[in-house]
Amino acid sequence: MMNVGQWLTRVRKESPLVHNMTNVVVTNFVANGLLAVGASPVMAYAKEEVADMVRLARALVLNIGTLNETDVEAMLIAGKAANEANIPVIFDPVGAGATAYRTETARRILREVNISILRGNASEIASIAGEQVRTKGVDAGDVQSDLVDVAKKAAHMFRCVVVITGKDDIVTDGERIVIVSNGDAMLTKVTGTGCLLSSVLGAFAGVGEDVMTSSVAALAYYGVAAEKAATQAKAPGSFQLSFLNALHETSAEEVDQYARIQGE
Amino acid sequence: MMNVGQWLTRVRKESPLVHNMTNVVVTNFVANGLLAVGASPVMAYAKEEVADMVRLARALVLNIGTLNETDVEAMLIAGKAANEANIPVIFDPVGAGATAYRTETARRILREVNISILRGNASEIASIAGEQVRTKGVDAGDVQSDLVDVAKKAAHMFRCVVVITGKDDIVTDGERIVIVSNGDAMLTKVTGTGCLLSSVLGAFAGVGEDVMTSSVAALAYYGVAAEKAATQAKAPGSFQLSFLNALHETSAEEVDQYARIQGE
Amino acid sequence: MMNVGQWLTRVRKESPLVHNMTNVVVTNFVANGLLAVGASPVMAYAKEEVADMVRLARALVLNIGTLNETDVEAMLIAGKAANEANIPVIFDPVGAGATAYRTETARRILREVNISILRGNASEIASIAGEQVRTKGVDAGDVQSDLVDVAKKAAHMFRCVVVITGKDDIVTDGERIVIVSNGDAMLTKVTGTGCLLSSVLGAFAGVGEDVMTSSVAALAYYGVAAEKAATQAKAPGSFQLSFLNALHETSAEEVDQYARIQGE
Repeated sequence: MMNVGQWLTRVRKESPLVHNMTNVVVTNFVANGLLAVGASPVMAYAKEEVADMVRLARALVLNIGTLNETDVEAMLIAGKAANEANIPVIFDPVGAGATAYRTETARRILREVNISILRGNASEIASIAGEQVRTKGVDAGDVQSDLVDVAKKAAHMFRCVVVITGKDDIVTDGERIVIVSNGDAMLTKVTGTGCLLSSVLGAFAGVGEDVMTSSVAALAYYGVAAEKAATQAKAPGSFQLSFLNALHETSAEEVDQYARIQGE
Repeated sequence: MMNVGQWLTRVRKESPLVHNMTNVVVTNFVANGLLAVGASPVMAYAKEEVADMVRLARALVLNIGTLNETDVEAMLIAGKAANEANIPVIFDPVGAGATAYRTETARRILREVNISILRGNASEIASIAGEQVRTKGVDAGDVQSDLVDVAKKAAHMFRCVVVITGKDDIVTDGERIVIVSNGDAMLTKVTGTGCLLSSVLGAFAGVGEDVMTSSVAALAYYGVAAEKAATQAKAPGSFQLSFLNALHETSAEEVDQYARIQGE
Repeated sequence: MMNVGQWLTRVRKESPLVHNMTNVVVTNFVANGLLAVGASPVMAYAKEEVADMVRLARALVLNIGTLNETDVEAMLIAGKAANEANIPVIFDPVGAGATAYRTETARRILREVNISILRGNASEIASIAGEQVRTKGVDAGDVQSDLVDVAKKAAHMFRCVVVITGKDDIVTDGERIVIVSNGDAMLTKVTGTGCLLSSVLGAFAGVGEDVMTSSVAALAYYGVAAEKAATQAKAPGSFQLSFLNALHETSAEEVDQYARIQGE
């Protein structure tokens, strides 16, 4: 797991086009965040064009934060086109477990599209995998073992890398387990920081082959940038601005220096 | 009307989930604003899930700023589910009076859903109530009496608390009249400050029983935060950031100290 | 081309209502940007109301950044209503050339609606006009002659003013050619700066008769504001904030002083 910073260097050099089908709350923040990272965002939702658009991209990010039937239909078209073209698909099942419609739609997408990376919080991933977890009380150095089990189960069920984010982030392909402990609680005070992370996972997956390693690198980078922003901003308006700045300014060397990664 | 600040304390302690069905212009700002207040925002628009989602929430906010038939249908489903579950519904009739479609849709929502709080500017409320008002020339200490009459008429027509915002804010349940005179003209230079206020009215209504008092408390808090932000920011980009910070940082004590409230 | 600053003065004095039918990524930024300029933004998308809304406005801006069939149908209704009422229509063909659907939709809008100003980057305008251009290597003082030819061809094809933006901006009505060389590369690090420019072109077109001159004035103002913001902000989060501030603070005198305009 050496040299996670080199993934950031590759993203900035290659500026991968990331096709986002995300929710209406965060779309501006996701686009600005990807630009700050050094990637190239594009948003396209119409069933008439999503297959054409995704073939131009290096990654596809599906996010059901404000889903509706029209968008889900287009997500399935885009996802299948991405699969045919060997383009990695990242899926963020926002709110799975909150309503039956979200949980069922998440499972439908996972059934019809081959997902490379599934990212959510503990309750979202657990609800999709048919598990229940205590979602309180996770803290650094004491990751709940049941969360790791849920992540591994989901990775086996959906044959993908699973990322459960929280105070510590869990990354697994079903066999290997890596814990990334960067980040800051201010991330929870700005809407869309999880959604943007999913798109950043897409940018990193777009410049390499090993989505397990690219995901660890993306998580470390994202968390280091958040820590940097939090040293400058103590309130949510300021933090949003500082975080976009930090995504732009954080260097590969800083990622290598400050990354807190445990595991294989 | 003592201790309006205690409402803010309750919102921050209970972090009520507020279900927003709002317009595409302001959705990010509303979510970040509610997080800054200390509430929990959720956005959901699909007719398949809005009834399920609203039953998890403490308030429902309907906003027709970029309405279309699909969203209006879902708003009616959500509104009726909220009524059945005794969850307060806040309605922001953005642009009523500007087009016949908006005015008629606003009236349809008011006919089919029991609204707890109707909030708009003078011309929006007047157009719904079938009145005409001079909307220029309102200033502090000299609230136009015809605006108060319009607010009272609307409160009787729709059996709800009516909030008309402007340089002075009018709150009435049809009998009691309260005027809140906090705020700053910079609020008019940032899009969505009215929409966010409607959602903040929802957060406050979600933690108590008396929507008249919760509305006065929300208006005073919102205005005090704006005044605080305006001392730090004189241009609109800076004000947006400072206002989100101020929503987060303003204390219950500051609200009690700086609130300018007249009336019963 | 004297006194481009006077156009800014007129916009601020008259505060023209600009009806935007734009994409979901940038809608908040466009609204806040127009407010910062001193114009009045409104967004409306429903086919039931767009004709009514556009008749209240001084300009209509159509942007296909996240197009779908429902929105395109409404854009055509709004565009035709604007034509009947002699209200200028600005068209931003975001992503034309990227997918067949976008290119064909852009041509359909240009066929069914009389456009006053067509604004895009080199590859967007070229793809609509059926041309191919090298889109790399444009720099100040050395505008590619083939880009000017593409702009002139498009102006003749669609009988409108064409604006191709890049490091240098080209404005032509098919006969006259003006080059505006203001701006800063930081504009490419914030999403929606092109979309907002199209809406600012609308605000300026709304206060005068000569859309060629109003476009040159809008481009000079926008670029001068960007240069001002770039002196204060070196990272994208900060630049977005500073640019909104600069749009608000830049004076007519500064525009006249710093405008870099060549041509007739």
